[in-house]
Amino acid sequence: MENALPASAAVFPYDRLLSFTIAIFRKIGCPESDALTAATALLSADLRGIDSHGIARLIGYVRLKEAGRANPQPRIRIVHETPSTAVVDGDSGLGLVVAPFAMQIAIEKAEKVGTGWVSVQNSNHFGIAGYHALKAVEKDMIGIAMTNASALVAPTFSIERLLGTNPICVAVPAGEEPPFVADLATTTAANGKLEILQRKKEAAPPGWIQDSEGRPSTDAHALKTGGALLPLGGDREHGSHKGYALGAVVDIFSAVLSGANYGPWVPPFPAYVPMPTGMPGKGIGHFFGAMRIDAFRPGEDFKFHMDKWIRRFREARPVAGQERVLIPGDPEREMEAQRRANGIPLHEDVLSDLRGLAEKLGIDHPF
Amino acid sequence: MENALPASAAVFPYDRLLSFTIAIFRKIGCPESDALTAATALLSADLRGIDSHGIARLIGYVRLKEAGRANPQPRIRIVHETPSTAVVDGDSGLGLVVAPFAMQIAIEKAEKVGTGWVSVQNSNHFGIAGYHALKAVEKDMIGIAMTNASALVAPTFSIERLLGTNPICVAVPAGEEPPFVADLATTTAANGKLEILQRKKEAAPPGWIQDSEGRPSTDAHALKTGGALLPLGGDREHGSHKGYALGAVVDIFSAVLSGANYGPWVPPFPAYVPMPTGMPGKGIGHFFGAMRIDAFRPGEDFKFHMDKWIRRFREARPVAGQERVLIPGDPEREMEAQRRANGIPLHEDVLSDLRGLAEKLGIDHPF
Repeated sequence: MENALPASAAVFPYDRLLSFTIAIFRKIGCPESDALTAATALLSADLRGIDSHGIARLIGYVRLKEAGRANPQPRIRIVHETPSTAVVDGDSGLGLVVAPFAMQIAIEKAEKVGTGWVSVQNSNHFGIAGYHALKAVEKDMIGIAMTNASALVAPTFSIERLLGTNPICVAVPAGEEPPFVADLATTTAANGKLEILQRKKEAAPPGWIQDSEGRPSTDAHALKTGGALLPLGGDREHGSHKGYALGAVVDIFSAVLSGANYGPWVPPFPAYVPMPTGMPGKGIGHFFGAMRIDAFRPGEDFKFHMDKWIRRFREARPVAGQERVLIPGDPEREMEAQRRANGIPLHEDVLSDLRGLAEKLGIDHPF
Repeated sequence: MENALPASAAVFPYDRLLSFTIAIFRKIGCPESDALTAATALLSADLRGIDSHGIARLIGYVRLKEAGRANPQPRIRIVHETPSTAVVDGDSGLGLVVAPFAMQIAIEKAEKVGTGWVSVQNSNHFGIAGYHALKAVEKDMIGIAMTNASALVAPTFSIERLLGTNPICVAVPAGEEPPFVADLATTTAANGKLEILQRKKEAAPPGWIQDSEGRPSTDAHALKTGGALLPLGGDREHGSHKGYALGAVVDIFSAVLSGANYGPWVPPFPAYVPMPTGMPGKGIGHFFGAMRIDAFRPGEDFKFHMDKWIRRFREARPVAGQERVLIPGDPEREMEAQRRANGIPLHEDVLSDLRGLAEKLGIDHPF
């Protein structure tokens, strides 16, 4: 999470952005309840400070619909199940709608048999993993969410891009403390951070990217000339084979298990990018899990110890120059509180996109 | 995995090491079947080339028993369960025995309801995660194994060591191809790699360790003077907050969920290190999962696509100076084939320990 907006950026109340986003989703054909679901999931990224995945991508979702790649009125359904598992077919719907449906199935299975695990085929991008995982936390469950994505990442020793940034989120309820939320792309840095460097015309740190021949690079634009993002670790000596393995696990759980596309065949988010040839599955894939806390130990015991865990880590002695040790989820939660109170800043490029989109679709807008 | 042994190292057939290890476990009081189970799990590390976790640690397990910290005749039992979950109390047994018991419960639950998830309290070190996860693969299931360990790792921005190297293994069956096995410590480098540098009197690469004030260090001995291993990523700019989050998830799943010790309270492996004070749980914790492939899609479909996934990645164009792109699990499997055929090399320090141990316990030895 990184706030790269100039201090002078225009700021909008959450509710106005929500109404606007709902109106856009309605306009492209989403039923009313789906439009609300999608808008809420999408804007959770803006609230939590993950600006690259929020309203900045609204125009991208509209383009997917216009290109016939996203179905605004999907018949989402379970195609296979056991007491603790299901495979969901998203019928090419927006991932922002398909993912909440699938996570709900995982939660319902956990209510019955302790845990629920759902792999999803035939979906599209679902926004941020954290939003979906936190749905389980509301029910006193541990929530897990992951998704594959189009290939921008080169495995260790590979020139070719074969994996997406494939994020994993694990969200864990606590008692008096706020939940623990680990939400991470399996790359050294997410693409959004490169975009920030591009706008600032700065170089990327070593370990983030490689060039078109697989050599280490600091060119923040290297992806446009055949380069690739690097798995978490950066290079072999620093454990990039581990980041590669984690990204691969996300791909396998999300797509090989469900029947979605995987590896280099995952459909791209930008609708102007041609689809890969020889696609082995349907759409993109996600994977969700819900584990009821009291399927392991009484909820109050778990929460007592989770609070103790969080407090011990939060009280750790910080290194010079740092105020404190953070608990995963702290920065995003603090950002959400601030932005709910003070509004969400939007970059001029995003505003310009949104104005154009609103005018094209004939929607009132606050920009 | 790194083979740091001199070419002249003495080499021993697997079967001889197995008989010897069984004899040692029998001598410290393990029942016959447990001794076989423990020896097989322990030596799987030597076969797979993870020399730091194999027979080199046998003397450490014996010392745990002698110190009264490991129980050679545990009554391992389920203390809580639902159709898809269980908590197992290891009764202070060897993790090498407790873990196979718990993984078997996960597999049996998966047979009935699709998946099985078992969190374990009151255990000891279990060897390598990969051995346990692969038990599920034998049953056409995805296997997951993780464990916490005593604190050697500083979270991002922390001077204090609060996490173990907390490994995660995910093993996935394929069809004609061998299984995919991601088995990784959630640190930049495992402690075993530091030990190799210490023997060679070499410096550690930047990003592996910090000194007692939390400053980056290249001193391979820094852990002995209050330093710490670093989470995968190395520093904040290279994503160490992600490695920290993953290590934390392992700790929470293994111990907060089960009632074991967590964070800085996890008991140390060396029996001469005093136990932490104010321990909040019992022993160390593990977490296991088993997911039946056909709980998601027909096994033959999954295997067809898993083979396709593996082949596509294996055929990726490698960077200059590298022969090929590896699939997670390739190096360990190749090492196992070679060592089963040619024997297992042991370092002179390990031989000397084993001779001393054998003589002390009055056991015949091949060293």
